[in-house]
Amino acid sequence: MKTKTLVICSGGLDSVTLAYLVAKERELSAVLSFDYGQRHQKEVEYAEHCASVLGAPYQLIDITSVGKVLTGSALTDNIDVPDGHYAEESMKSTVVPNRNTIMLSIAFGMAVSIGADSVAAAVHSGDHFIYPDCRPDFIKSFESMQKLALDGLAEIELYTPFVHSSKADIVTTGQRVNVPFADTWSCYKGLDQHCGRCGTCVERREAFHLAGVSDPTHYEDPDFWQSVT
Amino acid sequence: MKTKTLVICSGGLDSVTLAYLVAKERELSAVLSFDYGQRHQKEVEYAEHCASVLGAPYQLIDITSVGKVLTGSALTDNIDVPDGHYAEESMKSTVVPNRNTIMLSIAFGMAVSIGADSVAAAVHSGDHFIYPDCRPDFIKSFESMQKLALDGLAEIELYTPFVHSSKADIVTTGQRVNVPFADTWSCYKGLDQHCGRCGTCVERREAFHLAGVSDPTHYEDPDFWQSVT
Repeated sequence: MKTKTLVICSGGLDSVTLAYLVAKERELSAVLSFDYGQRHQKEVEYAEHCASVLGAPYQLIDITSVGKVLTGSALTDNIDVPDGHYAEESMKSTVVPNRNTIMLSIAFGMAVSIGADSVAAAVHSGDHFIYPDCRPDFIKSFESMQKLALDGLAEIELYTPFVHSSKADIVTTGQRVNVPFADTWSCYKGLDQHCGRCGTCVERREAFHLAGVSDPTHYEDPDFWQSVT
Repeated sequence: MKTKTLVICSGGLDSVTLAYLVAKERELSAVLSFDYGQRHQKEVEYAEHCASVLGAPYQLIDITSVGKVLTGSALTDNIDVPDGHYAEESMKSTVVPNRNTIMLSIAFGMAVSIGADSVAAAVHSGDHFIYPDCRPDFIKSFESMQKLALDGLAEIELYTPFVHSSKADIVTTGQRVNVPFADTWSCYKGLDQHCGRCGTCVERREAFHLAGVSDPTHYEDPDFWQSVT
């Protein structure tokens, strides 16, 4: 029997690839997105589209009121999104304290309520440097904590197949499971097309390059990434 | 220097006592309540009153949208609140899956954002039987998980001074730190006064009795508790 798996999906390249991987190798129980007061809704539309294509129920949970107390973030406040490579300094301004822990906790609650056996999250090794709540030891500790928290109610796995992968590895996996990459959204700026200049655009473009996979994304500034990598 | 402590407070006897204890022995940084779609707002008003009396900032975070996915709960759905003692069967219908984990995760995020060193929660031994996420091993595991999740950002303690206490012990502590017990709310039914019949009313009344402390609460049915304990 295939493991019933709830996928946390932002609509980005990593988590849409995860949803496709789960749909291929497991049972995709549902796709879950969070609205924590991002400045644009584009990502969420891509997540919903992904669920629809894969024939899975889609759930959006609004945690904007939680986002408001998590101050100091370029994603939720009116700080300019920094251009350039997704390196330490520019990444720091996008850190929402404890965001992954909060989203994972809610996802585990939802997994109990829908009878899923697993929660899948698209954390990857490129995030380890800055985000402690994407590291393997955190993932292991979170899963142990949930085992105690749900003792007697449910036993739910935390599935993070990309935890030791680079973003380029994810592109490679995505190609294998036929992810329509153009139907994923990475850009922080939320304009009509990917800006090509913000940290996530640069990281995305570079990942396709390193994976040797053709990038179908339309970037407003398609060559900027080469100047910062 | 006193430990800056954020107290999670529902407005109930346990968590208001916790706020008074923290205000006396530590530095009370803020009082935090959650609205997860309870059927009444009474508790939250008592929490806000408590913060005001203690001169601490008060924060209410609306997680109603999260509550909606946590189905099967008498607190959030239209299931009748069971009368009687707060024993296993009646307690089970009030279990919201993963609720404590979710609230603690958000509280830790808020602690980071306000610079608090500790999050205080009023879990007590009377809850261990049914709620796995109130047990000492869960508390320890949650604190370890947060240490990893916030590595390099903050180190925040999870303070649970009542984890080995009974509700009667909490009443005793409350008397010591001068808690105005009449300004706390326990009843699940949210009427003008405590019903005296639901699980939490019975448990409350019994705790005062066992502690040998006079109970200032006005109950609609003041004698019911004796028939079920």
